[in-house]
Amino acid sequence: MNNSHAVEIIGVGTELLLGGTTNTDARDISEMLTTLGINVFYHTVVGDNPARLKQVMEIAMGRADIIITTGGLGPTCDDLTKNVIAEALGRKLVYDPEEGERLKAYFERRQKPMTDNNLQQVYLPEGCIPLSNDWGTAPGCIIEDENLTVIMLPGPPHECNSMMKYRVMPYLESKAGGVIVSHNYRIFGMGESEMEHILRDDMNTYTNPTIAPYAKRYECFVRVTAKADSAEQAEAMIAPVGEMVKEKLGSVVYGVDVSGLDRLVMDLLLERGLTLSAAESCTGGLLAKRMTDFPGSSAVFAGGVVSYTNEMKIKVLGVKPETIEKYTVYSEEVAKEMAEGVRALTGSDLAVSLTGLAGPDGDGVHDVGTVCVGLATAKETMTAELHIPGKNRENVRMTATQWALDMIRRYLCGLPAEIRSIV
Amino acid sequence: MNNSHAVEIIGVGTELLLGGTTNTDARDISEMLTTLGINVFYHTVVGDNPARLKQVMEIAMGRADIIITTGGLGPTCDDLTKNVIAEALGRKLVYDPEEGERLKAYFERRQKPMTDNNLQQVYLPEGCIPLSNDWGTAPGCIIEDENLTVIMLPGPPHECNSMMKYRVMPYLESKAGGVIVSHNYRIFGMGESEMEHILRDDMNTYTNPTIAPYAKRYECFVRVTAKADSAEQAEAMIAPVGEMVKEKLGSVVYGVDVSGLDRLVMDLLLERGLTLSAAESCTGGLLAKRMTDFPGSSAVFAGGVVSYTNEMKIKVLGVKPETIEKYTVYSEEVAKEMAEGVRALTGSDLAVSLTGLAGPDGDGVHDVGTVCVGLATAKETMTAELHIPGKNRENVRMTATQWALDMIRRYLCGLPAEIRSIV
Repeated sequence: MNNSHAVEIIGVGTELLLGGTTNTDARDISEMLTTLGINVFYHTVVGDNPARLKQVMEIAMGRADIIITTGGLGPTCDDLTKNVIAEALGRKLVYDPEEGERLKAYFERRQKPMTDNNLQQVYLPEGCIPLSNDWGTAPGCIIEDENLTVIMLPGPPHECNSMMKYRVMPYLESKAGGVIVSHNYRIFGMGESEMEHILRDDMNTYTNPTIAPYAKRYECFVRVTAKADSAEQAEAMIAPVGEMVKEKLGSVVYGVDVSGLDRLVMDLLLERGLTLSAAESCTGGLLAKRMTDFPGSSAVFAGGVVSYTNEMKIKVLGVKPETIEKYTVYSEEVAKEMAEGVRALTGSDLAVSLTGLAGPDGDGVHDVGTVCVGLATAKETMTAELHIPGKNRENVRMTATQWALDMIRRYLCGLPAEIRSIV
Repeated sequence: MNNSHAVEIIGVGTELLLGGTTNTDARDISEMLTTLGINVFYHTVVGDNPARLKQVMEIAMGRADIIITTGGLGPTCDDLTKNVIAEALGRKLVYDPEEGERLKAYFERRQKPMTDNNLQQVYLPEGCIPLSNDWGTAPGCIIEDENLTVIMLPGPPHECNSMMKYRVMPYLESKAGGVIVSHNYRIFGMGESEMEHILRDDMNTYTNPTIAPYAKRYECFVRVTAKADSAEQAEAMIAPVGEMVKEKLGSVVYGVDVSGLDRLVMDLLLERGLTLSAAESCTGGLLAKRMTDFPGSSAVFAGGVVSYTNEMKIKVLGVKPETIEKYTVYSEEVAKEMAEGVRALTGSDLAVSLTGLAGPDGDGVHDVGTVCVGLATAKETMTAELHIPGKNRENVRMTATQWALDMIRRYLCGLPAEIRSIV
């Protein structure tokens, strides 16, 4: 199997056609296939209707050599993907004893009775490769036909994503011969257009490894991908290109293959044996929530105070009423006292604070998006004032926590505390 | 035009097939069409490739009577949707002087030179209804052929969404005659399968209004939709059916057309002039974050403490060390003291607390997903112990906040505090 494939991804489920649900499965699968250099040519969505699904399947068989379906593998009468596809490929559905045992064990663990319709899930097309589902009840499967591979995955996004990542990707990689290795250089504090401007010539010049920029909400990243006979070779090809990317973009590159600034800060704190606490006003607990998204965070996160009112800032954090009066509550001076207050309260090594106006309505004095950040250490307290554009509450809150996390990162890595104006 | 249509939505753009971009256009269009009672049967995505787009268009013409395309109307050479479709329908592209003037005015307003390739955007299929674009440069259009309507919209989500809402919906409504009204009955504390079981007969019996169940993550809802000559008539048709749904499902129906339990609790607190505070351990600020997601939340949310460590529970919230020792930190007794502690600290009317094991790793004593909730009021403190299945940290944390919010709702609405076992 080389990589010059034509892939079609077929989402099965009426809910996708009603508009309540977004087809993230097709996006996730496409993104993973792209890292293997495999071309996706079509996405199709069809409802829980056997006749229409059959037609869609026939069209796909005429134009694709890998078909990946999502959804319709569950226990209800709507779940018809396997029946329709098995029929289209002239295969019977047969009971898979191994998957049957897994399913029974699943219900036993949960001490729930298993109704008979559940067993429907473990009838799989004859001769297929079953894909065990560790994230739900319905197994997937791979059918290898002459010149056609059909892969069926469950629909719920977390099941589909995990099945694709841990079951299908290893299968496709083993078929491809050679390996594809990618690294993501995560960037915060530089926009996509500036990043593209700096790297444009290199993006056009390099073909293996490739250099590709991606924008996410609140940050962006550069993916460097090499194809070679071995992982070692691919890594050796990526290394100098990755170094070049880091050098050209500078300290805005905050990590390689990390999941985000929150996780990076947690890892940096763990490495250095330091603890953090947070005092939050406008972000209302979002920073604390992000710092505790990961298992093991109790080793580094000492605690937080959501001081949404002035009373709480004064009473719990020890902010002086006259500081609020003199500088307003959205000021670097108040941010400083909040950070120092929560640090004293929790006894943490570092403490971060956020106070500002998340909007969408202003207060007549400050612009929406004005957020002050403080970072207290044993020696000093740094502060900064941000002006986050857009007047969108969610955007202001997320962006403010990004800047706060980046401030911690820069401190922990000994980098200059570069809070740029982000108006 | 009645509503018994077969709609296909075709997204054109290679970026959708690479996985970096989600096809939100198809979702948004589908959602709007659903409110009109118009059936979407297929979503298709194809890249910027004329031959494949032509084939996709031919297939769609064979199975749909309304085709809506998104993307490929811009000024670059990738933008080929109009050319391919005009050819498929045997129409020439002709310069539209009115749209041409709009385009020139657009560039003049921005004091930017207009390059010639921009003019390509205002060549439209002969005899079409142009759709002026107030949100970007590329106009859309509607082509009415015998037994087929083709609607072309620009791809950028905010342009597509606005063009659909302000240009296409009025067109479709004027063709349909009558109005469609929907209400969503939001449900927490009952699974989709149980809800379907209770309502199955009604779902099958009713055709106008229709009753349709939807599962979201962490909760579900029932949508009741009526079609009538006027909004008043439609409302009158929905009212008794909505009452029946509420009666059959009981107090798990927490609201109609509300955005979520967090927003509902905020509104209930506002109505009653009460304030809330939160002491969170395992949820690490998520409840506080949810309570402050909405503008105006400062009127009801007094503040929160993220007491991730025992020290903080003891020092800031006044939890007794012997309570932790005797009952463990994940106990209703500790939840009670946390809730009472944060209530005393903030002076709020109500206070909620959460302490538990979010996982994925256990502590050797409690199961992952064991979460204790407390709700302190002036008179008493209620507590409950949850057992949230799945060992998924995000799921445990979100589900725990859902239960806590529902406990507050039940208290505020005078309902029994029904925390069911959710194993």
